Amino acid sequence: MAELVQRYLDQIRDEQIGLCDGELAGYIPELAKVDPEGFGLTLSASDGYVYESGDTAVEFTIQSISKPFTYALALDNLGPAAVDARIGVEPSGEAFNEISVDDVTKTPKNPMINAGAIAAVSLIPGANADERFGHILDFYSACAGRQLDVDSNVYASEKATGNRNRAIAYMLTSFGVLDGDPDEVLDVYFRQCSVNVTSTDLARMAATLARGGLNPLTGRRVTDANVVRRTLSVMVTCGMYDATGDWVSAVGMPAKSGVGGGIVAVLPGQLGIGVYSPRLDSRGNSVRGVQVCRNLSSQLGLHFLTVTRESSSTLRAVFDVSPGVRVYEVQGDLMFAGAEQVLRTAQHDCDDYDVAVLDAGHVDDIDDAARGMLIGMRASLTAAGKEVYLVDPDGRVVPEQRRADVDSIVFVTVEEAVEAARQLIG
Amino acid sequence: MAELVQRYLDQIRDEQIGLCDGELAGYIPELAKVDPEGFGLTLSASDGYVYESGDTAVEFTIQSISKPFTYALALDNLGPAAVDARIGVEPSGEAFNEISVDDVTKTPKNPMINAGAIAAVSLIPGANADERFGHILDFYSACAGRQLDVDSNVYASEKATGNRNRAIAYMLTSFGVLDGDPDEVLDVYFRQCSVNVTSTDLARMAATLARGGLNPLTGRRVTDANVVRRTLSVMVTCGMYDATGDWVSAVGMPAKSGVGGGIVAVLPGQLGIGVYSPRLDSRGNSVRGVQVCRNLSSQLGLHFLTVTRESSSTLRAVFDVSPGVRVYEVQGDLMFAGAEQVLRTAQHDCDDYDVAVLDAGHVDDIDDAARGMLIGMRASLTAAGKEVYLVDPDGRVVPEQRRADVDSIVFVTVEEAVEAARQLIG
Amino acid sequence: MAELVQRYLDQIRDEQIGLCDGELAGYIPELAKVDPEGFGLTLSASDGYVYESGDTAVEFTIQSISKPFTYALALDNLGPAAVDARIGVEPSGEAFNEISVDDVTKTPKNPMINAGAIAAVSLIPGANADERFGHILDFYSACAGRQLDVDSNVYASEKATGNRNRAIAYMLTSFGVLDGDPDEVLDVYFRQCSVNVTSTDLARMAATLARGGLNPLTGRRVTDANVVRRTLSVMVTCGMYDATGDWVSAVGMPAKSGVGGGIVAVLPGQLGIGVYSPRLDSRGNSVRGVQVCRNLSSQLGLHFLTVTRESSSTLRAVFDVSPGVRVYEVQGDLMFAGAEQVLRTAQHDCDDYDVAVLDAGHVDDIDDAARGMLIGMRASLTAAGKEVYLVDPDGRVVPEQRRADVDSIVFVTVEEAVEAARQLIG
Amino acid sequence: MAELVQRYLDQIRDEQIGLCDGELAGYIPELAKVDPEGFGLTLSASDGYVYESGDTAVEFTIQSISKPFTYALALDNLGPAAVDARIGVEPSGEAFNEISVDDVTKTPKNPMINAGAIAAVSLIPGANADERFGHILDFYSACAGRQLDVDSNVYASEKATGNRNRAIAYMLTSFGVLDGDPDEVLDVYFRQCSVNVTSTDLARMAATLARGGLNPLTGRRVTDANVVRRTLSVMVTCGMYDATGDWVSAVGMPAKSGVGGGIVAVLPGQLGIGVYSPRLDSRGNSVRGVQVCRNLSSQLGLHFLTVTRESSSTLRAVFDVSPGVRVYEVQGDLMFAGAEQVLRTAQHDCDDYDVAVLDAGHVDDIDDAARGMLIGMRASLTAAGKEVYLVDPDGRVVPEQRRADVDSIVFVTVEEAVEAARQLIG
Repeated sequence: MAELVQRYLDQIRDEQIGLCDGELAGYIPELAKVDPEGFGLTLSASDGYVYESGDTAVEFTIQSISKPFTYALALDNLGPAAVDARIGVEPSGEAFNEISVDDVTKTPKNPMINAGAIAAVSLIPGANADERFGHILDFYSACAGRQLDVDSNVYASEKATGNRNRAIAYMLTSFGVLDGDPDEVLDVYFRQCSVNVTSTDLARMAATLARGGLNPLTGRRVTDANVVRRTLSVMVTCGMYDATGDWVSAVGMPAKSGVGGGIVAVLPGQLGIGVYSPRLDSRGNSVRGVQVCRNLSSQLGLHFLTVTRESSSTLRAVFDVSPGVRVYEVQGDLMFAGAEQVLRTAQHDCDDYDVAVLDAGHVDDIDDAARGMLIGMRASLTAAGKEVYLVDPDGRVVPEQRRADVDSIVFVTVEEAVEAARQLIG
Repeated sequence: MAELVQRYLDQIRDEQIGLCDGELAGYIPELAKVDPEGFGLTLSASDGYVYESGDTAVEFTIQSISKPFTYALALDNLGPAAVDARIGVEPSGEAFNEISVDDVTKTPKNPMINAGAIAAVSLIPGANADERFGHILDFYSACAGRQLDVDSNVYASEKATGNRNRAIAYMLTSFGVLDGDPDEVLDVYFRQCSVNVTSTDLARMAATLARGGLNPLTGRRVTDANVVRRTLSVMVTCGMYDATGDWVSAVGMPAKSGVGGGIVAVLPGQLGIGVYSPRLDSRGNSVRGVQVCRNLSSQLGLHFLTVTRESSSTLRAVFDVSPGVRVYEVQGDLMFAGAEQVLRTAQHDCDDYDVAVLDAGHVDDIDDAARGMLIGMRASLTAAGKEVYLVDPDGRVVPEQRRADVDSIVFVTVEEAVEAARQLIG
Repeated sequence: MAELVQRYLDQIRDEQIGLCDGELAGYIPELAKVDPEGFGLTLSASDGYVYESGDTAVEFTIQSISKPFTYALALDNLGPAAVDARIGVEPSGEAFNEISVDDVTKTPKNPMINAGAIAAVSLIPGANADERFGHILDFYSACAGRQLDVDSNVYASEKATGNRNRAIAYMLTSFGVLDGDPDEVLDVYFRQCSVNVTSTDLARMAATLARGGLNPLTGRRVTDANVVRRTLSVMVTCGMYDATGDWVSAVGMPAKSGVGGGIVAVLPGQLGIGVYSPRLDSRGNSVRGVQVCRNLSSQLGLHFLTVTRESSSTLRAVFDVSPGVRVYEVQGDLMFAGAEQVLRTAQHDCDDYDVAVLDAGHVDDIDDAARGMLIGMRASLTAAGKEVYLVDPDGRVVPEQRRADVDSIVFVTVEEAVEAARQLIG
Repeated sequence: MAELVQRYLDQIRDEQIGLCDGELAGYIPELAKVDPEGFGLTLSASDGYVYESGDTAVEFTIQSISKPFTYALALDNLGPAAVDARIGVEPSGEAFNEISVDDVTKTPKNPMINAGAIAAVSLIPGANADERFGHILDFYSACAGRQLDVDSNVYASEKATGNRNRAIAYMLTSFGVLDGDPDEVLDVYFRQCSVNVTSTDLARMAATLARGGLNPLTGRRVTDANVVRRTLSVMVTCGMYDATGDWVSAVGMPAKSGVGGGIVAVLPGQLGIGVYSPRLDSRGNSVRGVQVCRNLSSQLGLHFLTVTRESSSTLRAVFDVSPGVRVYEVQGDLMFAGAEQVLRTAQHDCDDYDVAVLDAGHVDDIDDAARGMLIGMRASLTAAGKEVYLVDPDGRVVPEQRRADVDSIVFVTVEEAVEAARQLIG
């Protein structure tokens, strides 16, 4: 069944391969040396199952995608009150490298701009830069489910050229919102931006957020649900700087991009997404990455305000009616994430039955992505020696006129399907 | 079972009754004449079932809560491209009555500020003011599920004192973003702000948005899911003006308030909420209303980034194991909205069984609101002559030490519970 | 002697005739109908003597140049405290048609932007629009020294299309800073902007300000020095909107432009300047007018921070040493305005002497404009049957090597010049 | 005669001694150690004559008053084009320590804010910090007319605590508008701010600007008139940050203040003023200093837009009518600066005559300050054995009803006065 999702991913990635707009980040030589054609897309289901397409093993520096994770670590370590005292949660409507601070408190507007991210670093406990960075790297690694490391060349270059961030750190120090030595905080910040990741790492980190702080790959709880909720909230309102409204309308997933070419996006409760393509638009976002996220959202119906609605009622019931015959009763409005859940469950259980009866009689509405997946379920399971019968009285999954074209066996009632299944099993 | 939810609502409302901060809106005499103690709270489930607490039949003017609905109507009539050409979707970070327009296009930043709301009115087709307003009132009424009407005194006062809105309309005209006669558009806008609603109307209107444009009360589709997604997106990023970030972090429901004292909040796919209490804070939001929304969110776990996560997997299966014995298998993380769904389903089905076995063996995590509801389920159903057995092997719903205090019959395995049920039925 | 100044004016105007950049104001048809080549330049000395070059009799509408004069009238009628309570004096750094108001008081930032100008109109006493406008027109006429009138076509068009100003007036009303009926105030404002003037009228109005409120043509005091000082101060800091700093550095004269193509500039104590050329730059300033002001300032040394310095000590003494021989002792740094004063005095007195001895022995520094005028003095006075001897021991006025080229009779000491004069008169 | 001016100064200073509002600058301990009661006022005439009142020998650090002088030095060294490429001339309307840069060019808005001042330091040529600072200190010293020096304690403290300025310097470096090592530039900037001056030094530095770059004390030309005009222009529009409009209206002198407690003010062509009083208002300006400047301006008529007007024509003629009798013919509107000039001239010449006839018959208008000085002239000169006769036909200087009260001998015509003088001399 994985190949169904895989096909969607490949198709969405393929659509953007021809898109060669944008430029490599050029402010340090290291970022301009990468292969501009590199293009990886990874999707992690909330149970940790990972779909990969393209250059998903290519490493690149995490850059600003580090911001939500260090913010989460600060929340985890200090609690919301202590963090709020130093970093706000309001959008600044300004570019990432503005010193956007509150008029009165002089605290950075939010943790997604550099000023807030540097302040977040300063909140991570540690006797020195190494210790602080150690905690940060451990946290990122726990989210990714593998030991991450720093690209020392990028780190050295960031450090050598970071006058703007140096300015921000000194300004925050002068406002009294940055404790400790600004140069030490900056050193940690430059290291954190230089951590190497792959698109698959990003997808796993996103899935950890999607699961409320539990890494679905390792099963380890990295942080708690309150920390994640707050982090995702800030990603929603501030993650895309001055294009927040458009992103929420068009994509509808908490997300963050980095000038290394990565984008991380989270569909809470459902999915983690990581994309890599290093050519950037004028705002510093991956050109293909943004497009992939827009298409994933619209084609697979991943908008958080949409998925929420339907997802609660997808799998109404799963039960065995007789030995070898299991009924999967789906209901409500069906979209990608729901269909993916149905298929994955059926796939996972496939040792327990010979025939799966997919009862779509209570489906209210279904989109093309979900339709394709339910239809494709048969091909996927027959390959494993199982049969799939579809109960589709109203032709919602397979409309009458398309029955001839698709590989499915359709019944009008569950009883008929179960009867047929019993006979098949004999 | 309804009384369980009812109790939560009453309790959350009761907590705020002592809160007497804030002032009645005073810019027109009519708004200052209302009873300052009026306080109504209504919650509509996504199936249209309504819970009411307090003064839910008191009428007040909708004011700015009209904005998302007229925006939705404009989207419905003209499509997103035509609307986007006149009204943006980016937060303005400014007060509601600023003329916040895009630097280049001179279009209002978003439809939640007055400038954008007036522009939205101008987009509604109609040969004259009466016809335009007719469409708007029909749309609001369809969302509320009853015929709404205008408070003519408030309308007359709004019209007499609306210099600021007049300024905004003339400015937009001078920018070329407002077609037609500004005075006519304003007349419609003043009428729209003066539509009378109750907190229950607001909850129903919210539920219509929660259901993607389908009014769950009337069963009529008012608009389509794309329109609703876009409308809710804009409510998320712009609905609370310059407190967007805090609202998303702390409440996490698309929402809109009005100076008449109302607040509407939407939990996509799940709930519609309407609150009424006319004393306003310095930003023009209902003091108690804001507090009620914060507490509903935190106590009932209604944050959209949280609910999403858990809701997909609440009712894993419902099946009858023997005549009169129905098993409800719940799983995942359980919070208010999920528990409400379980109880409502069990209540609804209660003619079909004698004993309901609630299998909580696959529950990962549960919060206090959900725990209270699952425990209360027995009292609710025994009143209807049914029995409820709880399967709770790990003590997640009823911890060992509390077994003595609560009215529940707890088993370790489903088999034991089913066996007991069979014996009970005899 | 007038021809010397005349020549300078003609030359400065001629230099810009080829400059055809810019566009006629097009927001109302009337402004686009004028001859784009019209170009008039008038300079009024502080004694009312007027130099004219080009189309100085062409009438055009005063537009925003009305702003400082109505502000002055408000100050004159109500005093500074009452005016300050409604209109600030700080630059807004924004375009003329922004509603730039103080964050706290909501009063317009200054009287040179439309908001402040409309507020100024509202302060002029009067039972109705006619009466208010009557006072304004009388004041402008008193400054110009002739009865001015309204261009009724422009007025009608301004009124029909003034949505932006209407917006501003309603906004100010909503802030409580505009008393009375906004439509009536706007009617007066539209009339005031439509008053017809010539470049010579503007020069005379400027000269009235240069003379501290005394019209040098009519000898009538129009307002007092305190009103003028405050008005000129605001012109310095706010008259050129967001180009204030550049204008003060490069031109150094309080000034105001209008979209009718006029510019008024004041050299306090010295000169009033009026320019007309209707093609405007992107900021709405006359293209040629701005250039003429820059060149007048740099070539004639009219910067207020420069003239101040030198002017105090130009004519150290004037005395008759023997019948028919008058000595003019000049000193200090000599620039255009000082030289113009010397020549005009000598011209005025010319019935009192036969030989004027111009003692330049105490001149510290002299620029080309002043040098040209002192040298040209002889030609000018010999035409009237008088002789001029120049005492120039250090060759500051006529350097040694240029003596052959210029028409002047130069001595090293006053004694020698006086002796020669006595012999000439014989 | 000096005592007349002296009396005015003392009186204006005395009026503010009771003013104890404000706080010592506290951001570094050194600034908080000074005597809060220190209060010095110095006025330098344009010929270098100095009037001192109070603690004019107390040294304090120049702080931001250094800004216009380093800007002038940069203009002097590089010319306006090179300086304009790095530093703008537009007001920022913001506090001194904002990083106010042009949206497009990223250059600091003007040289009076820290960003612009640091950029100005970076433009001063020099192989290293010592050499750069050497040029700066030489320039300040040349303006003051004595060798100035650095307060090494203040310098050390500024350097230790200058995080905000460090932030600004790094930001400018990141924008590419600051060449060289930001730490070196800052070192020079901190030294420049720590230069010790007295109020008399400031008055002399101001007088050098008032004289167009010529130090009237030493007679040395420090810079040229173009540099000074541009520097004074920027002081007019930007010297008082966000209170520019009010300062120009109320005081009307290019000025600059420092947190050391000093204020420098320049009346072009006339006067240089230095004030010292270390208690600061919330904007960082000397409380008494600001008040003294306001009163000097209003009581002595020093507004640049006023003085300009009258000053050109004060001393119309000075001539001897017979041995020992010199006539001083004054005319026009007479204010402090003009009267001071008359008295100083008469005082200076007093060896050349026995009787000075002060002909006020052509005075148009006179204010109290000027009246007091002309009347006091007699007492001043009789002390030196000279007599003063006043010709005052219209009673403008000494009104009829006050003749009995004042020490003056008044005539109606010059002839009568001269005749009386001849008889006196006998």
